Amino acid sequence: MTDPRLTPVLNRIDKDLPEAIDRLMGLLRIRSISTDPAYGAECDAAADWLVDDLVGIGINASKRATPGHPMVVGHGEGDEGTGPHLLFYGHYDVQPVDPLDQWATPPFEPELQGTQAHGQVIRGRGASDDKGQLMTFVEACRAWKAVHGSLPARISFFFEGEEESGSPSLIPFMKENAAELTADLALICDTSMVAPGVPSISSQLRGMLKDEFTLIGPRIDLHSGHYGGPALNPLREISRIIASFHDETGRVAVEDFYEGVREVPGEVRRQWESCGFDERNYLESVGLTRPHGEQGYSTLEQQWARPTLEVNGLWGGYTGAGSKTVIPAEAHCKITCRLVGDMDPARLRERIRAHVEARLPPDARVVWSGDLDGAAAAVMNIARPEFEAARQALGEEWAREAVFVGMGGSIPIAGFFKDILGLDAMLIGFANDDDAIHSPNEKYDVQSFHKGIRSWARILAALSR
Amino acid sequence: MTDPRLTPVLNRIDKDLPEAIDRLMGLLRIRSISTDPAYGAECDAAADWLVDDLVGIGINASKRATPGHPMVVGHGEGDEGTGPHLLFYGHYDVQPVDPLDQWATPPFEPELQGTQAHGQVIRGRGASDDKGQLMTFVEACRAWKAVHGSLPARISFFFEGEEESGSPSLIPFMKENAAELTADLALICDTSMVAPGVPSISSQLRGMLKDEFTLIGPRIDLHSGHYGGPALNPLREISRIIASFHDETGRVAVEDFYEGVREVPGEVRRQWESCGFDERNYLESVGLTRPHGEQGYSTLEQQWARPTLEVNGLWGGYTGAGSKTVIPAEAHCKITCRLVGDMDPARLRERIRAHVEARLPPDARVVWSGDLDGAAAAVMNIARPEFEAARQALGEEWAREAVFVGMGGSIPIAGFFKDILGLDAMLIGFANDDDAIHSPNEKYDVQSFHKGIRSWARILAALSR
Repeated sequence: MTDPRLTPVLNRIDKDLPEAIDRLMGLLRIRSISTDPAYGAECDAAADWLVDDLVGIGINASKRATPGHPMVVGHGEGDEGTGPHLLFYGHYDVQPVDPLDQWATPPFEPELQGTQAHGQVIRGRGASDDKGQLMTFVEACRAWKAVHGSLPARISFFFEGEEESGSPSLIPFMKENAAELTADLALICDTSMVAPGVPSISSQLRGMLKDEFTLIGPRIDLHSGHYGGPALNPLREISRIIASFHDETGRVAVEDFYEGVREVPGEVRRQWESCGFDERNYLESVGLTRPHGEQGYSTLEQQWARPTLEVNGLWGGYTGAGSKTVIPAEAHCKITCRLVGDMDPARLRERIRAHVEARLPPDARVVWSGDLDGAAAAVMNIARPEFEAARQALGEEWAREAVFVGMGGSIPIAGFFKDILGLDAMLIGFANDDDAIHSPNEKYDVQSFHKGIRSWARILAALSR
Repeated sequence: MTDPRLTPVLNRIDKDLPEAIDRLMGLLRIRSISTDPAYGAECDAAADWLVDDLVGIGINASKRATPGHPMVVGHGEGDEGTGPHLLFYGHYDVQPVDPLDQWATPPFEPELQGTQAHGQVIRGRGASDDKGQLMTFVEACRAWKAVHGSLPARISFFFEGEEESGSPSLIPFMKENAAELTADLALICDTSMVAPGVPSISSQLRGMLKDEFTLIGPRIDLHSGHYGGPALNPLREISRIIASFHDETGRVAVEDFYEGVREVPGEVRRQWESCGFDERNYLESVGLTRPHGEQGYSTLEQQWARPTLEVNGLWGGYTGAGSKTVIPAEAHCKITCRLVGDMDPARLRERIRAHVEARLPPDARVVWSGDLDGAAAAVMNIARPEFEAARQALGEEWAREAVFVGMGGSIPIAGFFKDILGLDAMLIGFANDDDAIHSPNEKYDVQSFHKGIRSWARILAALSR
């Protein structure tokens, strides 16, 4: 039974689509590359653009200065007593565009293009990540306000301009403005669908831990003739230690590594199995014929629900052309872990370091140089009724049951909402894996944009029922 | 009972020492750096100097052109029926001198210096490696000829000028001139004494095998969030394979790796134990407290008599500052083996490659890029009576029993004499480990030079008895 408030809003969205695309084009023309200081003024301009656009809908929005690029914060009052106060997050900054010569059209001259595989797409830097996604929510609010004269719920907007450059201002800003930013539920539109046309709500994101160590053996580089045999070889020792990180089943062998890891409930696992994820394409597209993670877990579980300990960099000795008969004094290793469940980054770091140190041979020592930042996994509180309401709403829009999906990557903002503002987050995005975010020729399917706007309208209706 | 021919020769050597040092100084002033084309004329001049000097003793010597720096070959007839035809080898080229600012005196302005630790030394590039050592033999011949009017045996001289730059002309020249260069025994003076004052005959040199491989996993570098877990990580796999090269006792675990390796005879091992080798200083000078090679073998055995498989270079993934969440497509490894006994480089290469390939996980492949050169170990034929004769002669000169010692490094020339000319080689040198060969402030102790000359006179007497 469709909410009677909804039908005119959806009609309005359909009718207004060309103008919505035009508005997005306007935002896409602003070259808000946050990592490059040369584009500081353009980042500022993108923030101004958003403030103006929100104010145009009747949102009380303003630009807020930070030591870096500005934030945009806006508040819209909703109809009386209609569900939770929502805080919508997105980012207006974009990735750099190099290699520029691989773009078929200029990255900041967005255009509509017809494609065989995806129908119409909006081509340009930021079309998908995250300007297009961000605007799906803004357009839904615009349409609702145009039809009903008011928003269906109290809605706050929070846009940052540093997501692609490490968000240095984010945590301080959230802490300083916690009272203003606190709401009942955060909404984030910066994720993909698990498969084309399959509406997806992210139920869990993996956390992250980074570390780095140098294993030091002899005092100086040695000649492999004069010292080969008696000498400790740091390359051999670091290889032995790295090999000890996993057992023969692919399980991480660091003591108590899995503390805080929970098995995926059978119901969720069954849902994942039918969520439309194309395992074969996922693997074959990168040259693999099978999953290589922990035995006994599916590819999706390995990617979404299991922790990892990966070596991301390894080096030592002579690495140039030809050979050199050297036994080097040092070997180096960079690692990252992806965390799930309640794994504690700080305790895990200690355990990994203890694992390495317990395996050092005599005459060797280790120096740690990793930064001490770490982010726990974010497990969404999908027991909240808003998640089921959103799932139903998405299912109606896409004529396909919406799925709760995991994510292998880490989106720190979700954890920050929880830790700093005590706020659960709901991540719903309409991007596709082939949108080429961070790459040349980024695009956003018009279908993603159009049905994304309609999806948010349905979700707003469902949450304010 | 001293050979009556010997005493006047030794007296002559003592008396002539200042002139012998002057002659060496003359050779040291010639900047015969073979690896730098700018010094081509000086290499030629050093060859001319040697030809002139040999001719001055009555040796039929000449310079022989090669595509690189010239060889010097000379022949001296000896007294009738007096022992083996000897071929003496040395090299007149020297290492580059950088870093020049670390030399206390100019490298090509040799001088006599008094030192606390070593008494008088001859300071300058090439003083020890190999001009000073080479001249010990020439001076012994000069003195013998001066006293007796003839050499005690038939002696040929063979000097090259490319030893410090890979000897590209050596094998072709030996093959083209095999008949002329063939003798009964080769003598080489290019090695050190195992400890100061301990006369040493090298009984074995290790051989060498080089190889390099790239382990390739995913088709492209992957993101550790999106693919961490299911993806094969080449850094982890290459570490596991490297770790499999050795067992927990330090023994190489490649199948049949030890084929052709012989245990050191108890007699030789006992001799090594009392040869004066300072194990503690050898280890502590490079920051080690104990030997790290195969359990059950002494430091000297590990260095001289046991084969090794060492990783000399290892790299892959992100090696810059900070971290990058990458799972790289490739990992790289350079290895060298030191060989002993009858280990066959070609078969060993196959075994190592098979060991690696048998341990590849699905979806991984390996690409080999090592050069295919390899040199078997050289085990001297110390059962020949000349070795015992030389050992006795050295013991008389140094008032300390001479020892047969191994060498951890590789001196390919010994193998070439055997393989190309069918010639056993006897390596006797008077250098000390602190001569700083290949380094700034190279020196040769006057004691090494003086007693080296006397040693060769005694050896010539012993071999021509």
